[in-house]
Amino acid sequence: MLLAYDQGMEHGPTDFNDDNIDPNFILDIALKSQVFTGLVFQEGVAEKYYPIGGVDKKNYPPLIIKLNGKTGLHKGEEPLSLQLTSVDQAIKLGAVGVGYTIYVGSAHEEQMMVEFRRLCDEAHAKDLIVIAWMYPRGKQVEGKENSKDVVAYAARIALELGADFAKLPYTGDPDSFAWVIKSAGATKVLVQGGSKIEEAGLIQEVTDFMKVGATGLAIGRNIWQATDPVGISQKLAKIIF
Amino acid sequence: MLLAYDQGMEHGPTDFNDDNIDPNFILDIALKSQVFTGLVFQEGVAEKYYPIGGVDKKNYPPLIIKLNGKTGLHKGEEPLSLQLTSVDQAIKLGAVGVGYTIYVGSAHEEQMMVEFRRLCDEAHAKDLIVIAWMYPRGKQVEGKENSKDVVAYAARIALELGADFAKLPYTGDPDSFAWVIKSAGATKVLVQGGSKIEEAGLIQEVTDFMKVGATGLAIGRNIWQATDPVGISQKLAKIIF
Amino acid sequence: MLLAYDQGMEHGPTDFNDDNIDPNFILDIALKSQVFTGLVFQEGVAEKYYPIGGVDKKNYPPLIIKLNGKTGLHKGEEPLSLQLTSVDQAIKLGAVGVGYTIYVGSAHEEQMMVEFRRLCDEAHAKDLIVIAWMYPRGKQVEGKENSKDVVAYAARIALELGADFAKLPYTGDPDSFAWVIKSAGATKVLVQGGSKIEEAGLIQEVTDFMKVGATGLAIGRNIWQATDPVGISQKLAKIIF
Amino acid sequence: MLLAYDQGMEHGPTDFNDDNIDPNFILDIALKSQVFTGLVFQEGVAEKYYPIGGVDKKNYPPLIIKLNGKTGLHKGEEPLSLQLTSVDQAIKLGAVGVGYTIYVGSAHEEQMMVEFRRLCDEAHAKDLIVIAWMYPRGKQVEGKENSKDVVAYAARIALELGADFAKLPYTGDPDSFAWVIKSAGATKVLVQGGSKIEEAGLIQEVTDFMKVGATGLAIGRNIWQATDPVGISQKLAKIIF
Amino acid sequence: MLLAYDQGMEHGPTDFNDDNIDPNFILDIALKSQVFTGLVFQEGVAEKYYPIGGVDKKNYPPLIIKLNGKTGLHKGEEPLSLQLTSVDQAIKLGAVGVGYTIYVGSAHEEQMMVEFRRLCDEAHAKDLIVIAWMYPRGKQVEGKENSKDVVAYAARIALELGADFAKLPYTGDPDSFAWVIKSAGATKVLVQGGSKIEEAGLIQEVTDFMKVGATGLAIGRNIWQATDPVGISQKLAKIIF
Repeated sequence: MLLAYDQGMEHGPTDFNDDNIDPNFILDIALKSQVFTGLVFQEGVAEKYYPIGGVDKKNYPPLIIKLNGKTGLHKGEEPLSLQLTSVDQAIKLGAVGVGYTIYVGSAHEEQMMVEFRRLCDEAHAKDLIVIAWMYPRGKQVEGKENSKDVVAYAARIALELGADFAKLPYTGDPDSFAWVIKSAGATKVLVQGGSKIEEAGLIQEVTDFMKVGATGLAIGRNIWQATDPVGISQKLAKIIF
Repeated sequence: MLLAYDQGMEHGPTDFNDDNIDPNFILDIALKSQVFTGLVFQEGVAEKYYPIGGVDKKNYPPLIIKLNGKTGLHKGEEPLSLQLTSVDQAIKLGAVGVGYTIYVGSAHEEQMMVEFRRLCDEAHAKDLIVIAWMYPRGKQVEGKENSKDVVAYAARIALELGADFAKLPYTGDPDSFAWVIKSAGATKVLVQGGSKIEEAGLIQEVTDFMKVGATGLAIGRNIWQATDPVGISQKLAKIIF
Repeated sequence: MLLAYDQGMEHGPTDFNDDNIDPNFILDIALKSQVFTGLVFQEGVAEKYYPIGGVDKKNYPPLIIKLNGKTGLHKGEEPLSLQLTSVDQAIKLGAVGVGYTIYVGSAHEEQMMVEFRRLCDEAHAKDLIVIAWMYPRGKQVEGKENSKDVVAYAARIALELGADFAKLPYTGDPDSFAWVIKSAGATKVLVQGGSKIEEAGLIQEVTDFMKVGATGLAIGRNIWQATDPVGISQKLAKIIF
Repeated sequence: MLLAYDQGMEHGPTDFNDDNIDPNFILDIALKSQVFTGLVFQEGVAEKYYPIGGVDKKNYPPLIIKLNGKTGLHKGEEPLSLQLTSVDQAIKLGAVGVGYTIYVGSAHEEQMMVEFRRLCDEAHAKDLIVIAWMYPRGKQVEGKENSKDVVAYAARIALELGADFAKLPYTGDPDSFAWVIKSAGATKVLVQGGSKIEEAGLIQEVTDFMKVGATGLAIGRNIWQATDPVGISQKLAKIIF
Repeated sequence: MLLAYDQGMEHGPTDFNDDNIDPNFILDIALKSQVFTGLVFQEGVAEKYYPIGGVDKKNYPPLIIKLNGKTGLHKGEEPLSLQLTSVDQAIKLGAVGVGYTIYVGSAHEEQMMVEFRRLCDEAHAKDLIVIAWMYPRGKQVEGKENSKDVVAYAARIALELGADFAKLPYTGDPDSFAWVIKSAGATKVLVQGGSKIEEAGLIQEVTDFMKVGATGLAIGRNIWQATDPVGISQKLAKIIF
């Protein structure tokens, strides 16, 4: 159960309010809820906010550094997200794992697959966990970003490329998602939280995909945009663990 | 006689059913039929499924790592497949050989030839076998992907580039394929299995191209999509060896 | 409070008159006003004009080398500015910090973010301060170069990428700029001086953004195009410090 | 007098018949005629056919490895041929010289000039002879591929870039070709054999350009497509030496 | 006062006649006139013609190697000239300085600025003089290649990038050229000779720009296309020194 907070890069401050714009607010949710098994930051935020050592660190979830990233300003372009941070820099910041987004279907997909594989081998050689953010995007998969076949293909690529975990969008129903999980094989599946939805729907969704074999959830906006972030975190944790 | 299982990357899970989506199912066919001289995997699948050492390994065919790959999501684009895995990583996984696809005729053909040559020299220096997947593709060869002249040209490029084996599409008749094999010279020819066809046709085809000098077959879907994978494997093996 | 003088590269000599075309004129303003905490030069100007050591150097502000740059001759193109100078060369010239421009929204934005991150890590490892010039540009942000949302996004990217300071355009009013500063979090905000405006307006502007939390000002034309450069420098310094 | 046999890469097997498709047939011509001072192969053919050491090798002409190459499948594209083989690999195969094609006039001309210069310096440092295949191609020189001015320009570029030999198309008459040779200066000129023409015409041509100062001939199809390859080789050798 | 002879690369042999096509003819002019302070060659010509050591060398002007170059065959394309020769190779040939062309205004301008800066730092570290050929070219500056503002901008870029000398086109009148020289600051200005003009005009021009502060002249065609090359060289030298 990962708490994701790289939206400042991917979407910009429009996702934030006066509270959650501050990374300390997110660290606080993690500290108080004690249910997250990982915190996802870009390097800059980790460097300036995540406690590097000492007593405090023990109470926070382990750090996952997002190695690539892009802004959301490029409407109508085929998405490309490239390595910003090195594996060694992630280790220096105390990370136990790294994340990398592949825009499956994008005209630049091959470039990201090449970069991911190289980083994946390096991270494994240095004992880090590797999480692949597998997001169908671009004109070749337009309108099919959540379809069974496209999401299952995304899951399979994560396996063929050697990711330990694949973060995937939910297909909307447990039956089709069971096929996605089967396609991922030995690569474990984390479901992407996505935009904020109402609580009952979220809980139903999580219950559904956990039942068919998902390993967990990588969630952001549905936690730190919630009125009771700690409460909803703990409710979701009960379903997951 | 190679058992190919990189379709999860190249075509996605639509090629699979509930059984053959699991790499263990393919390992099982190999184990039970005892006729394959090589198993083709992408790095991720090899890493998580192929037995690295010990007693078990001896009963499985040697490992061939496919060094490059691309997804099948890019309709209407000139195909480009780039190195995903290093030769050293293939060795670490226990591979005895490596494979690399060149899309002959693609607008990106030169880029793949350059990358292939570099990898081929490195693999040879490290005592690995090098297999070139030579696939005519792209608008310059459209409609001629199986023609005598284009396939013979693909075979010749494999020789000029120094491949030990060229995996090639069948031209459809033994006479024209004899010219393909002649063009390949000292580079041995493996015929690509292709999509699933009915058994009698497959057996005729294999008989035909083996008679004119092909060295073997790299086959996937016609084995693991068959109702009796072990049976068909052994029938084909009788023709080949 | 930085004195910026890289306009010779970015705009060309049309920004200059017979006095300020000479880098010594700028060094003189810095020497006489004794209020600047940094001088921004391209490598060539630093090399030929900035006093490298000895007694004189102590009286000049510390040196900031601009690592990238481009000319202003490219109307209608999506801006791209690439690394011209290495971090090691900046150190050799005596710099205490480095600057790098990212054109937020440009079609080449990702390339600059990748290069910036690499340089930022290297500069930090060598104990230099890193200042990100965050300029919204290109067709995706056309007409919104000074809007609250776009400038706040630019500020946030600087934080996510790990800059120590972000140099940003002013949004025009203190309320919206407070949100920009909040978005930048632990990354300190310097406001871009921009084209020459009349003195009263400039003083009002500086008073406004300093009140809502800006850290300082990076100013060029409003100083060295002024009739009394030393006077206006000292007036602004009183507001800032 | 070079015997060129890289047409399998450049044109494909359509240039070949049942005899000359076999590299051993070419080695045989060289052995029997004893007039060639160099044999041009791509790396793959050299590796699998050229005798590496021992008694046999002494009877064959020295090896020239063609470092770059491309296929002939790309109609209507501006030609680009990139390095396939390293200088060190050529040395390992026993080569005394290397060849590289620059498509003079192509939109990719600059890229090939950059790569050639780097390889040329490396080859010279390792005591290899460097031969530049200078072929005018692409829309900028369309219809002028054999004109005096364009071929003389190609010859001059070979000199400016430091080639030991320039392989050039014949301009069609000795007067204009004298200017080509003058333009090449200290770089020696080899004339390109080109497509098969009738014997009398070939002999006239060779007589003509040798008279105005050409150093030799690099010939392929006019030898190994001839009815009496050894005979024609020896006739041409008499003119050249 | 530099004698430039890289026109074989940039324009081709159409600039030459039966005499000046031979690099020895140019060396002869230099030897007999004894007024030149530098000779500009591409690497290939230097390697094969310039005397490397011994008694002879002392009588020739020092060698300047042009590091980049392109052919003149590309009408209607935005000019791009890339590094052909390394700084180390220039040193090996005995050069005391290196030259590099930046096409100011070209769509590829940034790529050349990046490459120039890197080479400039390397050359300075190895004690070579660096001369920047600053040529306004491309659609953004079309028709303004000799205008005061564009040439002054080109001069300024040379300073900002750290060149020791900038080779610039003449603006046509001494007043505007005084501004160009001022823009170049500590970077010294050499005026480009350009196409052959009649002697009186040339002498007037040189007199004019030397009066307003130019450091010298880089001249080619107006010397070696002249009827009395030694004579005109000595006349110009009188004005310059």
